Amino acid sequence: MRKYYFLLLISFISFFANAQNTDSIFIKKLSDEIMVNGKAYDNLRQLCKQIGNRLSGSPQMYKAEAWGMQTLEKSGADKVWKQPCMVPHWVRGGKDQLWTSVFVSANNPKMLDGRLENKYLDVLAIGNSEGTGNKVLTGEVVLVNSFDELENKKEQVKDKIVFFNYPFNETFVRTFAAYGDAAKYRTTGAGRAAKYGAKAVIVRSMSHATDNFPHTGAMRYDTAYSKIPAMAIGLRDADWLAARTTKGNIRVSMKSNAHFLPDTIAHNIIGELKGSVYPDQYITIGGHLDSWDVGEGAHDDGAGIVQTIEVMRALKALGYQPRYTIRFVLFANEENGLRGGTKYFEEAKEKNEKHLFALESDAGGFTPRGIGIDASDDVLKKIKSWSALLKPYGCDNLEKGGGGADIGQLKNVGAVLSSLTPDSQRYFDIHHARSDVFEAVNKRELHLGAVNMAALIYLVDKYGL
Amino acid sequence: MRKYYFLLLISFISFFANAQNTDSIFIKKLSDEIMVNGKAYDNLRQLCKQIGNRLSGSPQMYKAEAWGMQTLEKSGADKVWKQPCMVPHWVRGGKDQLWTSVFVSANNPKMLDGRLENKYLDVLAIGNSEGTGNKVLTGEVVLVNSFDELENKKEQVKDKIVFFNYPFNETFVRTFAAYGDAAKYRTTGAGRAAKYGAKAVIVRSMSHATDNFPHTGAMRYDTAYSKIPAMAIGLRDADWLAARTTKGNIRVSMKSNAHFLPDTIAHNIIGELKGSVYPDQYITIGGHLDSWDVGEGAHDDGAGIVQTIEVMRALKALGYQPRYTIRFVLFANEENGLRGGTKYFEEAKEKNEKHLFALESDAGGFTPRGIGIDASDDVLKKIKSWSALLKPYGCDNLEKGGGGADIGQLKNVGAVLSSLTPDSQRYFDIHHARSDVFEAVNKRELHLGAVNMAALIYLVDKYGL
Repeated sequence: MRKYYFLLLISFISFFANAQNTDSIFIKKLSDEIMVNGKAYDNLRQLCKQIGNRLSGSPQMYKAEAWGMQTLEKSGADKVWKQPCMVPHWVRGGKDQLWTSVFVSANNPKMLDGRLENKYLDVLAIGNSEGTGNKVLTGEVVLVNSFDELENKKEQVKDKIVFFNYPFNETFVRTFAAYGDAAKYRTTGAGRAAKYGAKAVIVRSMSHATDNFPHTGAMRYDTAYSKIPAMAIGLRDADWLAARTTKGNIRVSMKSNAHFLPDTIAHNIIGELKGSVYPDQYITIGGHLDSWDVGEGAHDDGAGIVQTIEVMRALKALGYQPRYTIRFVLFANEENGLRGGTKYFEEAKEKNEKHLFALESDAGGFTPRGIGIDASDDVLKKIKSWSALLKPYGCDNLEKGGGGADIGQLKNVGAVLSSLTPDSQRYFDIHHARSDVFEAVNKRELHLGAVNMAALIYLVDKYGL
Repeated sequence: MRKYYFLLLISFISFFANAQNTDSIFIKKLSDEIMVNGKAYDNLRQLCKQIGNRLSGSPQMYKAEAWGMQTLEKSGADKVWKQPCMVPHWVRGGKDQLWTSVFVSANNPKMLDGRLENKYLDVLAIGNSEGTGNKVLTGEVVLVNSFDELENKKEQVKDKIVFFNYPFNETFVRTFAAYGDAAKYRTTGAGRAAKYGAKAVIVRSMSHATDNFPHTGAMRYDTAYSKIPAMAIGLRDADWLAARTTKGNIRVSMKSNAHFLPDTIAHNIIGELKGSVYPDQYITIGGHLDSWDVGEGAHDDGAGIVQTIEVMRALKALGYQPRYTIRFVLFANEENGLRGGTKYFEEAKEKNEKHLFALESDAGGFTPRGIGIDASDDVLKKIKSWSALLKPYGCDNLEKGGGGADIGQLKNVGAVLSSLTPDSQRYFDIHHARSDVFEAVNKRELHLGAVNMAALIYLVDKYGL
């Protein structure tokens, strides 16, 4: 009897060893296919250089949708369709400006004497903000380094321009923690300053870049107070303005034509590989097709888009027949509304779809380091048991706490959520800035992300959860 | 009695827990100091932009030595000195050229009819090669994709120019494996072709970059045969030349003034922090100050140099008093002679110095991923026990198999060898090419490397090996 168990044990072990071996061979094939024949980088070049940035409602957004349809079809989808949703339509409406009048002399521009000249600072109206109606708005700057300081100075900010100079914390090795810490100044600063009668805000960019590009991003007003203009300012200019403000009162002028147009139509672009065993159960993998209206949305989130498409292309190229139905989704409107992700979830719920798993790539096309996973302990344990299979490709950190904006709601239809965790050191150099361009993406890093995504999707599809 | 052991156990556990806690606090301080106040990036800017590339024997090499002395002093060394050694003095002697005469028409430059024009390809004489004496050398190209193919074609290469078009293998996730695989074509290709009477070689660059920069690097002749010119060619031009050669015979012309001058003097630049407990036992940390004569030697190995100096600056800034004597060494002549590393070892041996540990950073200033370690199993186990302390800063892969060119010989005076293992995806885009410039280095990635180096040095110094 003992011998029987022993033999059973041996056969189990050898079954699992063989399975792991088969898997590691298949994953190596996926890696070779993507690293040698991958199209993600070329696709990203097209998206960035032939279309460019693509904010919801912009002409480029519609071009990107058409490109997405075509590229998913070309890459082997069984079926491609558009899922319509209404999206906010915010426009910058021209060049945002912020300047200050400073005294300069012909001999030494740093001396505070001589001619009066305008010093232009590099700014971007914050996304979803109302501009100055394209008129010049002038006011005295009140520097505050934190919300606490705003509370202390609340009597002094009426009719002034509040300058939130909260620094992006460089000590967080995981830079998303610094973003989580600082982003509230961009998202809610205008509302909190308007409460005390400020007439505009300037916000230090959420970045630790060494350059001076301003970083935009979404904000929301506090509806109880007025919708005052809100500008993001580059780091060097922020340092200059802070130093100048500390020396004595300074007035600045700003101009922005930012405003909302009526909501408009947009679409999630969905490609599908039909499942052979569980056609009515879904695995979703995606990124977002929209971007902010500066730069080229290369890392955010062109990278996630082309990686998503690449996973499909590679699975098809190797003749892989999925057991579950896999949907490759190019989400609409992540940046300033999340209407695409919401729509995808709502339809899934309406149709009573069963969702097994969702994977999002929206943290840049950098070298992959891990996968974040939002699942029960049992499922997490199962996924962690694959870590040796992913380790050769970089994603050895399988950790609790994944998900993403676009897929987040799918938890409510049963999906285990996950997100690719690339190296984050460079992300906030370029996030929402003019510097988020194709040239900032490295081909191998981008493709290696797709390798790990493809490997994970393969394992989930093969073994279930 | 059992109770006694239990209490003893508890006190041991709490001792180790406290030790780990003290260590993690100190390492966090090191990280904060380097990530916020670090000078490595600014120092690298100086080295790259004020001095530039610095091949052994070049005027910039001497400037870099002076800069290194000054920067080590400024960063808090107890003592800084120069250790002289003789180094090879190879010079490029002008612009390397390679061109081919192709037929073009005014209407379609791709058509093989019409006018005869020179197409210039982007090349660099390979380091240590003898050029054409600045005269034009012309010959027919014989394409070979491997040494095996050279053997098959050995009757056909006499008086021809052999074009080694061996591809850099993209399937290796660890790109140094691809370099290990391909570099022999650069280092020994000329010798092997000369054996069969070839009059020059062209070598496909050791790179998977998407650009066309040629990558130089060291080579050595087979002294039994003649010293024929050897040129590295950019990848796009290599692809073009391979395709063109396949279509039919093609002749190319080349010109290079590369040659050796007599050996000259150079110096290892050494900064020291004196040990308080074991002043006569040494920990060495270093990179190499020389670089190839193109680009700015930013990643290779400006990064290792400024990280080495940063480790010292940070330890001093936190008031750390080392137990062992720590030497911060800016090695001379790694690229084309290794005379600096050899000299350092020889003097250590002569003086009967006891060396505990050596750490080299010479794989680029990219995000750190791990530490390679060349040690006995016991020592390796001890170092691996620190992995939880390093993990928050990225270096969680502590693996057997480290060391480095400059420190390698220190094994013979007792040192455990180690090397920083940064992410390698981008390294061979820029290695030994004009694109290895300051702008290719990211501040946070560079500084994070220094954090992990400082943490490891701290642990080795505190606990010994």
